[in-house]
Amino acid sequence: MVKVGIVGGTGYTGVELIRLLIAHPQVEISVITSRGEAGTKVADMFPNLRGHLDLAFTEPDTDVLAECDLVFFATPNGVAMKVVPELLSRGTKVVDLAADFRLSDAAVWQHWYGQEHACPEILAEAVYGLPEINRDKIRSARLVANPGCYPTAVQLGFIPLLKNDLVDTSRLIADAKSGVSGAGRQAKVGTLSCEVSESFKAYGASGHRHLPEIKQGLGLVAGNEVGLTFVPHLLPMIRGIEATLYAELKGDFAELQNIFEEHYRSEPFVDVMPLREHPETRTVRGTNLCRIALHQQPDSNTVIVLSVIDNLVKGAAGQAVQNMNLMLGLEETAGLKQMALLP
Amino acid sequence: MVKVGIVGGTGYTGVELIRLLIAHPQVEISVITSRGEAGTKVADMFPNLRGHLDLAFTEPDTDVLAECDLVFFATPNGVAMKVVPELLSRGTKVVDLAADFRLSDAAVWQHWYGQEHACPEILAEAVYGLPEINRDKIRSARLVANPGCYPTAVQLGFIPLLKNDLVDTSRLIADAKSGVSGAGRQAKVGTLSCEVSESFKAYGASGHRHLPEIKQGLGLVAGNEVGLTFVPHLLPMIRGIEATLYAELKGDFAELQNIFEEHYRSEPFVDVMPLREHPETRTVRGTNLCRIALHQQPDSNTVIVLSVIDNLVKGAAGQAVQNMNLMLGLEETAGLKQMALLP
Amino acid sequence: MVKVGIVGGTGYTGVELIRLLIAHPQVEISVITSRGEAGTKVADMFPNLRGHLDLAFTEPDTDVLAECDLVFFATPNGVAMKVVPELLSRGTKVVDLAADFRLSDAAVWQHWYGQEHACPEILAEAVYGLPEINRDKIRSARLVANPGCYPTAVQLGFIPLLKNDLVDTSRLIADAKSGVSGAGRQAKVGTLSCEVSESFKAYGASGHRHLPEIKQGLGLVAGNEVGLTFVPHLLPMIRGIEATLYAELKGDFAELQNIFEEHYRSEPFVDVMPLREHPETRTVRGTNLCRIALHQQPDSNTVIVLSVIDNLVKGAAGQAVQNMNLMLGLEETAGLKQMALLP
Amino acid sequence: MVKVGIVGGTGYTGVELIRLLIAHPQVEISVITSRGEAGTKVADMFPNLRGHLDLAFTEPDTDVLAECDLVFFATPNGVAMKVVPELLSRGTKVVDLAADFRLSDAAVWQHWYGQEHACPEILAEAVYGLPEINRDKIRSARLVANPGCYPTAVQLGFIPLLKNDLVDTSRLIADAKSGVSGAGRQAKVGTLSCEVSESFKAYGASGHRHLPEIKQGLGLVAGNEVGLTFVPHLLPMIRGIEATLYAELKGDFAELQNIFEEHYRSEPFVDVMPLREHPETRTVRGTNLCRIALHQQPDSNTVIVLSVIDNLVKGAAGQAVQNMNLMLGLEETAGLKQMALLP
Repeated sequence: MVKVGIVGGTGYTGVELIRLLIAHPQVEISVITSRGEAGTKVADMFPNLRGHLDLAFTEPDTDVLAECDLVFFATPNGVAMKVVPELLSRGTKVVDLAADFRLSDAAVWQHWYGQEHACPEILAEAVYGLPEINRDKIRSARLVANPGCYPTAVQLGFIPLLKNDLVDTSRLIADAKSGVSGAGRQAKVGTLSCEVSESFKAYGASGHRHLPEIKQGLGLVAGNEVGLTFVPHLLPMIRGIEATLYAELKGDFAELQNIFEEHYRSEPFVDVMPLREHPETRTVRGTNLCRIALHQQPDSNTVIVLSVIDNLVKGAAGQAVQNMNLMLGLEETAGLKQMALLP
Repeated sequence: MVKVGIVGGTGYTGVELIRLLIAHPQVEISVITSRGEAGTKVADMFPNLRGHLDLAFTEPDTDVLAECDLVFFATPNGVAMKVVPELLSRGTKVVDLAADFRLSDAAVWQHWYGQEHACPEILAEAVYGLPEINRDKIRSARLVANPGCYPTAVQLGFIPLLKNDLVDTSRLIADAKSGVSGAGRQAKVGTLSCEVSESFKAYGASGHRHLPEIKQGLGLVAGNEVGLTFVPHLLPMIRGIEATLYAELKGDFAELQNIFEEHYRSEPFVDVMPLREHPETRTVRGTNLCRIALHQQPDSNTVIVLSVIDNLVKGAAGQAVQNMNLMLGLEETAGLKQMALLP
Repeated sequence: MVKVGIVGGTGYTGVELIRLLIAHPQVEISVITSRGEAGTKVADMFPNLRGHLDLAFTEPDTDVLAECDLVFFATPNGVAMKVVPELLSRGTKVVDLAADFRLSDAAVWQHWYGQEHACPEILAEAVYGLPEINRDKIRSARLVANPGCYPTAVQLGFIPLLKNDLVDTSRLIADAKSGVSGAGRQAKVGTLSCEVSESFKAYGASGHRHLPEIKQGLGLVAGNEVGLTFVPHLLPMIRGIEATLYAELKGDFAELQNIFEEHYRSEPFVDVMPLREHPETRTVRGTNLCRIALHQQPDSNTVIVLSVIDNLVKGAAGQAVQNMNLMLGLEETAGLKQMALLP
Repeated sequence: MVKVGIVGGTGYTGVELIRLLIAHPQVEISVITSRGEAGTKVADMFPNLRGHLDLAFTEPDTDVLAECDLVFFATPNGVAMKVVPELLSRGTKVVDLAADFRLSDAAVWQHWYGQEHACPEILAEAVYGLPEINRDKIRSARLVANPGCYPTAVQLGFIPLLKNDLVDTSRLIADAKSGVSGAGRQAKVGTLSCEVSESFKAYGASGHRHLPEIKQGLGLVAGNEVGLTFVPHLLPMIRGIEATLYAELKGDFAELQNIFEEHYRSEPFVDVMPLREHPETRTVRGTNLCRIALHQQPDSNTVIVLSVIDNLVKGAAGQAVQNMNLMLGLEETAGLKQMALLP
């Protein structure tokens, strides 16, 4: 059994991570910290865990965390970067589910996140935790930056096109839609049930923090800077991201299905659906899967890629567990074999 | 008081049309037909109308319909075209809310709708009922083809760009999302609550019937055939369409806001929001409004247009009433001044 | 035109009241106050009102309010009671949509609302604004306490039974369910979309503030104290209350339908449905109606009353307008004739 | 590994049963039959199962089914009773998830289900599959009638009260609410998303088929016929039942919490929550749990029991697996240890 700690377990990413780790056959959760909720039983805050977990939240304590094999940060942006250097120096591995280590350029990070980076010297060491791109680096990493939810869905859909130089990378479009859980568990008027139910809207259409993250990732795959327009939207539902991707084909659409299937053949968590299917977010709810399908319209050389994930699993906690499995030498799929509840 | 008839009032478009016409100060509903429900009180099927309407559904009867000033067809595709010539010949005006008269080319119609057109000779006379484009023609029309829901939202968002030659028309992208009411009131597994709630998906991504309709409309505005990729998606909610539109700018984004505001200044049902706002579908629910906002992302020459309507009102029944008002010489906004319920 | 003011227009009750008053043919809104939002255009906060209202929120100012014919308080409990005496003394009538004047016994009020009452001497003058019971008193009232949402649905369902001494009043049961809008627009974790969607629960099952209000009202009708168990529940939807009421019959179920129909025959906003129908909350959404239906099960002498309202309309803002109409000598139904949007 | 078959796997109960059985460590699904879908891959109909199950639906064939250790019927009422005698005679055990064997009196069954019973002689042998009542009988049963969803939630809430003679059994009230999945996957207008979203209603208020089933079960526990009023309601969500139960106390409320905790102390799937908690359906979604809490209001001798389950799990497929485990000598909780997804 490996011992893990969770810093900041009171949000939706946190409770999902706890759920996955409880069910993981080789993991023991040693500590879950929360300044605000220290002393509260975790299962009193999240009654779905009643009978499955006896821990209470505790005050964060670096000495306690340092005894873990690996610590997850499920904290707001800007928290992990203040603690991670100390933990690394004491031999504890880290997966940060926030954005602190996702961008390799500290100046870009500071521009989009509006604060000074606390440890820019560590950015070079941090591995971007998209196993489908960086599996080997993750295996040997001390620090993994778990990707954002939108970036996961968008990159997995575009990668085979860019890797094989099949599209014009100067004008990629990603129209993405997310369930409300992506907005977190803070009390805000904007995510009240009465504000988001029975309505739909774009947000961040003039520029969202996930834009530079996606551009960085796709640029590395393409071997050159890419042009990307990324518009997120808020869905009146809890979980799920769907990204509809558009790119101009250089070659023939007919070959793409094979290329995608080949590219992802050995990936345990990417499912290329039959040509012209329409993946539904509910079929991946609660799972670590990304489902992808390809389309083309008559008289058009635009390829359409549909990509769905559960934002809290493959887009957050599940991918974090996948990264942990790789970092600690466990089976990559351990604890991640659930099927979606349907309906 | 003008006298109107409704053919096929048992669907969602039908009940919405009835609601709007009951509240219309200058209209009397003479007859509502339905083969399947003849004899049933309309308010027994739709209890929101209890106390507001005493009519029962009746068998369709051309003699009765011909006594109306105007007849609405809220029928499945392919029904109106069999009756409309007779009604026109007897001096009754017609608004068809289905697709029978939307495409001017009978061959294209037959390709997308999979049946022979019953009266191709009338297509030339039918006026496409988007008042923002065809107001004068509608005023003198005998037969108006009420636009589709997606085509309304998409065209209203693109028109100022195309009219003023501001974008590359060879690669327009419309990523559109609709509430479930757009799928109608037929009993189908695919629109059961358990199938669509808490899920999201694209559909018709390889080609949807509204694609040729939108291309026809935009081509007329642009003065040349346009290249368009149109992907519809199904939202887990009842009413509302949001279309996120992408086009490559020829000129400067900074001028667009003024151009849009000028273009729509006198339109009663198009509301150009302040620059970089994010219109929500719920703010137009139950209303005949289209709300539009403009965005651009850093280092990009792609313009993003956000356009929202209520698919059953501006996308169907409300626009039909607007067309009726024009055709019968009533005030264009009569009966269409509701505010959205919020929350 | 009568001139009205609204104190506290930033909540869901407030925006609904504004919507109804804008559409009211004989009302002019003079002022809408909000300490926190003074200076903000009302339509910027509530975009459904764009184009329909030009007012901005202003700081509360008793001199300005006193110029109105009538002032509505759509404030949290405990606010109105501090201002109302002054307004009354200056000749302005008041409808309080909060609970400050609903309970005639200050001690009971203080027990349930946890604060000292600021003007217990006025309680005797305040008229409980359920027009179906107190129409004449409301007509001549200076101060009307607008009933709570649950109390409206529950009392309207029980009244004909109690008025006619048809049931055992010692053990009435009201199992009531409300949409989330009843919980207000404050930012709280408990009403986030992710907390209430796709879930259902009872709350306040050991005693809710509406319990003494309902008991007071029913006791007056019955002529004796009643025994009542009242359990509210939270529905995963925005608007609507359904109350399922249970009482033990003294006499024969067969007569009840007639008694209910007679009792409510001249009421414009109570609709007794045919025997054994099942009223749906959506058929009254956005309307001032209460729909009621009666049931009995085999071998049982328990009568079941189903009662539905829109909690924000007949349960709050609509009833407030109805009370205003009565207090100012306007037609009782003015501004309240909407049909529900369906679907 | 035990071998099981499923007759009728195309409904919501069926797909949930398949999901649970795939994840069960000691079960192999041999055959899933469906007349209408024979030849279709199960995972093509239910894409949440892609990658987890390779079976296709087959035509029902008694010889094939008879080779199973146990066969589940997830069919409409009236199907199982035509095949079960043959299977039993060939040594195959049966769990029927429909209602065919739930009522011991064939005449009562025929009254409520409107058809002749095909094998009344077997009713005496069938064991009612509520393990909390009949665990030992289930262990040795050949045929188990899996309880209805409402009856499970209602009985588990009432049983400790009746077993210990704590309440007046002549006037029990069960106000129950269910998600839409309880209505099944048939294409019907009444369960379309646009019909049930954002609305709430009672149904079957004059008498529902689960009424005699609950009365039979409670009568056996109480040792006498009970008086019960049972009103089901339709919730605008997919999964979950909440039952709010009312009964008149003979003794003291203060003792009840202990009595409930004692009664269910060793039950793996009943969780008595702390006094005066409010169980939420989402905390049991996807799990086999029933969560219960107790309340009393001031000056009242009515006990209120809140009981929640997932209608498709503890109310159907999960309880069926629990029964299978008992019948086949497996660990009772095998395959049933999931936590609910939250949010």
